Amino acid sequence: MIIVTQPGATEKEIEAIIGVLTEHGFDIHRSTGVRHTVIGAIGVQPDFDHRQIELLPGVAEVVRITEPYKIASRAFRQEGTIIDVGNVKIGGDEVVIMAGPCSVESEKQIFTVAERVAKGGAKLLRGGAYKPRSSPYAFQGMGEEGLKLLRKAADAFKLCVITEVMDASQIRLVEKYTDVIQVGARNMQNYTFLKELGKASKPVMLKRGLSATIEEWLMSAEYILSGGNHNVMLCERGIRTFEPSTRNTMDIGAIPLVKKKSHLPVIADPSHGIGIRDKVIPMARASVAVGADGIIVEVHNDPDHAKSDGAQSLFPDQFDQMMKEVRLIAAAIGRSIA
Amino acid sequence: MIIVTQPGATEKEIEAIIGVLTEHGFDIHRSTGVRHTVIGAIGVQPDFDHRQIELLPGVAEVVRITEPYKIASRAFRQEGTIIDVGNVKIGGDEVVIMAGPCSVESEKQIFTVAERVAKGGAKLLRGGAYKPRSSPYAFQGMGEEGLKLLRKAADAFKLCVITEVMDASQIRLVEKYTDVIQVGARNMQNYTFLKELGKASKPVMLKRGLSATIEEWLMSAEYILSGGNHNVMLCERGIRTFEPSTRNTMDIGAIPLVKKKSHLPVIADPSHGIGIRDKVIPMARASVAVGADGIIVEVHNDPDHAKSDGAQSLFPDQFDQMMKEVRLIAAAIGRSIA
Amino acid sequence: MIIVTQPGATEKEIEAIIGVLTEHGFDIHRSTGVRHTVIGAIGVQPDFDHRQIELLPGVAEVVRITEPYKIASRAFRQEGTIIDVGNVKIGGDEVVIMAGPCSVESEKQIFTVAERVAKGGAKLLRGGAYKPRSSPYAFQGMGEEGLKLLRKAADAFKLCVITEVMDASQIRLVEKYTDVIQVGARNMQNYTFLKELGKASKPVMLKRGLSATIEEWLMSAEYILSGGNHNVMLCERGIRTFEPSTRNTMDIGAIPLVKKKSHLPVIADPSHGIGIRDKVIPMARASVAVGADGIIVEVHNDPDHAKSDGAQSLFPDQFDQMMKEVRLIAAAIGRSIA
Amino acid sequence: MIIVTQPGATEKEIEAIIGVLTEHGFDIHRSTGVRHTVIGAIGVQPDFDHRQIELLPGVAEVVRITEPYKIASRAFRQEGTIIDVGNVKIGGDEVVIMAGPCSVESEKQIFTVAERVAKGGAKLLRGGAYKPRSSPYAFQGMGEEGLKLLRKAADAFKLCVITEVMDASQIRLVEKYTDVIQVGARNMQNYTFLKELGKASKPVMLKRGLSATIEEWLMSAEYILSGGNHNVMLCERGIRTFEPSTRNTMDIGAIPLVKKKSHLPVIADPSHGIGIRDKVIPMARASVAVGADGIIVEVHNDPDHAKSDGAQSLFPDQFDQMMKEVRLIAAAIGRSIA
Repeated sequence: MIIVTQPGATEKEIEAIIGVLTEHGFDIHRSTGVRHTVIGAIGVQPDFDHRQIELLPGVAEVVRITEPYKIASRAFRQEGTIIDVGNVKIGGDEVVIMAGPCSVESEKQIFTVAERVAKGGAKLLRGGAYKPRSSPYAFQGMGEEGLKLLRKAADAFKLCVITEVMDASQIRLVEKYTDVIQVGARNMQNYTFLKELGKASKPVMLKRGLSATIEEWLMSAEYILSGGNHNVMLCERGIRTFEPSTRNTMDIGAIPLVKKKSHLPVIADPSHGIGIRDKVIPMARASVAVGADGIIVEVHNDPDHAKSDGAQSLFPDQFDQMMKEVRLIAAAIGRSIA
Repeated sequence: MIIVTQPGATEKEIEAIIGVLTEHGFDIHRSTGVRHTVIGAIGVQPDFDHRQIELLPGVAEVVRITEPYKIASRAFRQEGTIIDVGNVKIGGDEVVIMAGPCSVESEKQIFTVAERVAKGGAKLLRGGAYKPRSSPYAFQGMGEEGLKLLRKAADAFKLCVITEVMDASQIRLVEKYTDVIQVGARNMQNYTFLKELGKASKPVMLKRGLSATIEEWLMSAEYILSGGNHNVMLCERGIRTFEPSTRNTMDIGAIPLVKKKSHLPVIADPSHGIGIRDKVIPMARASVAVGADGIIVEVHNDPDHAKSDGAQSLFPDQFDQMMKEVRLIAAAIGRSIA
Repeated sequence: MIIVTQPGATEKEIEAIIGVLTEHGFDIHRSTGVRHTVIGAIGVQPDFDHRQIELLPGVAEVVRITEPYKIASRAFRQEGTIIDVGNVKIGGDEVVIMAGPCSVESEKQIFTVAERVAKGGAKLLRGGAYKPRSSPYAFQGMGEEGLKLLRKAADAFKLCVITEVMDASQIRLVEKYTDVIQVGARNMQNYTFLKELGKASKPVMLKRGLSATIEEWLMSAEYILSGGNHNVMLCERGIRTFEPSTRNTMDIGAIPLVKKKSHLPVIADPSHGIGIRDKVIPMARASVAVGADGIIVEVHNDPDHAKSDGAQSLFPDQFDQMMKEVRLIAAAIGRSIA
Repeated sequence: MIIVTQPGATEKEIEAIIGVLTEHGFDIHRSTGVRHTVIGAIGVQPDFDHRQIELLPGVAEVVRITEPYKIASRAFRQEGTIIDVGNVKIGGDEVVIMAGPCSVESEKQIFTVAERVAKGGAKLLRGGAYKPRSSPYAFQGMGEEGLKLLRKAADAFKLCVITEVMDASQIRLVEKYTDVIQVGARNMQNYTFLKELGKASKPVMLKRGLSATIEEWLMSAEYILSGGNHNVMLCERGIRTFEPSTRNTMDIGAIPLVKKKSHLPVIADPSHGIGIRDKVIPMARASVAVGADGIIVEVHNDPDHAKSDGAQSLFPDQFDQMMKEVRLIAAAIGRSIA
């Protein structure tokens, strides 16, 4: 932390500032200038709130100089993390495709979709059994029955499984069926849950919160990492802005930014990112072009009758078209899609 | 739901739209105009995603006409809900003051603060025993020990208790010590938790999420209400905007808006709303002036050494000053503060 | 500007950083720490883009330590600026009320409204003759004819005039009729216009842009001030957020914040801030309670037939009610309204 | 406009609503349902503020059903507009590259950059002579001298010119030197200026405002189009969000969205969109992948000494790299870059 004093700060004020910092365990490094005195407060005190220093007399500016996350940081680990999920490597040269319906609805539905996306080149089957719905009156998912169907369909077509867990109490159960645990945007700062995920036996895909900064997103990853689970991938799925004509605004620029700050793989979710079926393919292209390590996309055999998110789900033929296009884009930037 | 067709939509397209609506269980009401045909789709289908209709050929616009929340709505209950907490009535003419430290830190601390805020006119003692912190390395609260101290201090000075619960698994324990359960902004859409709160025996104060719309906030209240717990109050605590110089932007206008849409009491949290100690008092004044039913404010006997949020906590003397000022404002609008 | 190096930055990198700073005319102040070296770059170089230093090898963080505005700053002038408009003092103990229709529409309309608001206690008459409309097909204002009527009506009831100027080319003309020049939110960063306003003979009220930070707002004020016109007041009129149910989100907290950073008077515009007639009065109360130096409010003799903004205009009786309520609030905080 | 009444609205209320609509010139189409009555108000009344109807007793919801822009709409013109600039066609199969420094600084600088970008494949030379700067103390551009140098450099290397105009008063002068007039984000709703641009003899590139919705952006285009200048292209350059680590958040999804709503060509500006040099190339790739009709990018021969925006300007070698990459992306989606 760097503290810059106001022009005209008195020696007494400066000493008082240093006193507070020392009391909180910081090592002090002082440089007295003509107009400003600069105080370096060295050391990491996670409980320390820098706003406390801002309120002291004589202080002009307080600046944190260290990122609050550690294990998630590129400084902690220079090379990118590669996560093994079955035979699939997430975070390597290959751009990994995860596809499937928003919700598991029936055996027939999940098998039909699984077959098509497997054939098209997907490596993971997505599908929700526990659904976070904004209305208590809406379909809440099939629960364990859905998990069983999802596993069965994935196995039948040699796919891995990714599915959402909504609460710490569900982790043990879902782990039995899934290969990757998905954490939804609305749970990104559910700290009790994040702590439990640190002890989970499966990799976690952590979606960015609707209005989360990149730093907050990485801090939430840090909760999982610091609990001992180092297999964390991030997922950009759109943020909230003032624009009314789309469900979300997909922050494509966050993908290269977060990859610079962190070694964790980053997946793009164009389905939620844009929220309208006919714009999902261009957004998937842009995601691969910008450097995403994977795409997670909603595909439904009959989107018009989907129990949730039909409007942003691709038809199977559109999924094939998307695969064709993103393969060309991947090749153009020296990556591949199986 | 109202569907307006494009100019030039064919009869076949219109029939197809009506077909989809009928299939989903809506009653249909059609009016054929010169340029547009207007289709009214009557009935409530919580699972229905109106974006599905937007994608059909010939559709120009789809409009939801009913709010998705019911029990939370002013239409459900014309008169404002009044919640009894001990002898205190929240939602009536009196503006109720809740005050105390961010975290319970020690017996001495919580007793000192409780005494001061009780004397100043607070009716509820706030204090966190389970703390949602963005860093896994920061102070996480005293847990049950903190709850015991909070209860003891409140009882000593005839105050009621409000404290945060972070997860469904903590509800039963915390209910033993608290009078009101606080749900934090980051948990506003933790649906598993909300469902459990519907079965809780104590009133719930639901904070608005950082980027939640008013409708989403009321939908989250609906989760609790529809579970059977009708004692829900809302809390405006600032939203996230692009402004870097404050922690949050307090949406003072949301207070009268939500009171028009809903019968639930609304509490204002100027401490989090503005996040800087020396602006908390003016924001408390504005909150009472605009019509809030209560104020929840952080007060600490020694903010400079607080384990959390010291920078936005009032000194006890400032709390007295705030009480003096908000009493005058309350009187000016025909309300009172005890 | 303070530059903090990365842990492990080499001496060569540090020297290169210092080289760039020296070349740009900064005086250098270096402190070498164990992990970080801190470089203070002293001097003001308005053309210097601090992002350039961020890109240099070895740099961890770059921090601007001086606000880019000078004349607008509280440091430049400790006591609050008081602007004389006719016999009215803006920025003193009295909270000044400015009221009138969105647009001047006819002699009858403006005289009717002027009479009512004068009687109710307004000191300035507002009314637009040049209207910034988002549609080129909408009413664009009466032009000079409207200015004449506005002046005449104001004079008849001993009011001063405030009206909007949309472009540098209109300044000379409008100055002949108005006492205060209003600059709209969409013009807050129209720099050619701001420069010309620096030479205007009348005080300027500068509205905050829809997504302007407080610093940008003060920088725009600086353009006018640095041109020689020191009579600038600011106006908070709501910012854009994700909330769909209101036209804008009024940033009530910005009022005390900007008053701390600057000596300029701050006016609140609850009509645009909330955009719905029945919430204008509570927002006016909150604005006075928080410390605004004035209120500008839309009042129309027949809002249902107003040519613009009827939905947010008060009926004359509502204006009287507002005056009654804000007088009580002003008294409660030790201020007055004439 | 569609008006839906509240359940229980009385016949008298419904008649009053219809009365207001009729008075404002709308044709009425009424359908009486069991719970709701739906009133269609047909006709276009640009001055009519739909919020006025929202305030009437008995009204539940008011919905605009026609977009307020006409000439800018895809409905007005099905095929995409192609704008001829010299020999270059903007809006066709070819993705057009515009490159050059932020500001024209000297003859040597602009000639050096022009030569490099022409050789690399750019078709237009960008460079500012009038600079909108947030500080009045910063470099304001070379003015007419800069325009002359820009023209001379472009001619020498067979490039067209695009440069910013800041105010209506500069149009006549700048038209003598430029091929395309650029309108900056901060001027997007400077209506006096937009009206004058409707009479300009050169095509206009209209940047999206920092917090403009897509509809507002198209309405601003409508101002120019309705004035008679049909050669308008749009430019996505990033919007403002809460994310502090980038200058702006580039709304890549807006590109396909606006191309669906409008026939106007859309250019992407990754330099301002992300604001950090090392992320400009991936954002340029994403822009082409998503379907932009052109890229405008800042290139400087010596970014470290640029008078403005050096931190987001590419080195000439990076520009070559970008061209190589975007050519591959363009080919992958069936487009070309010369």
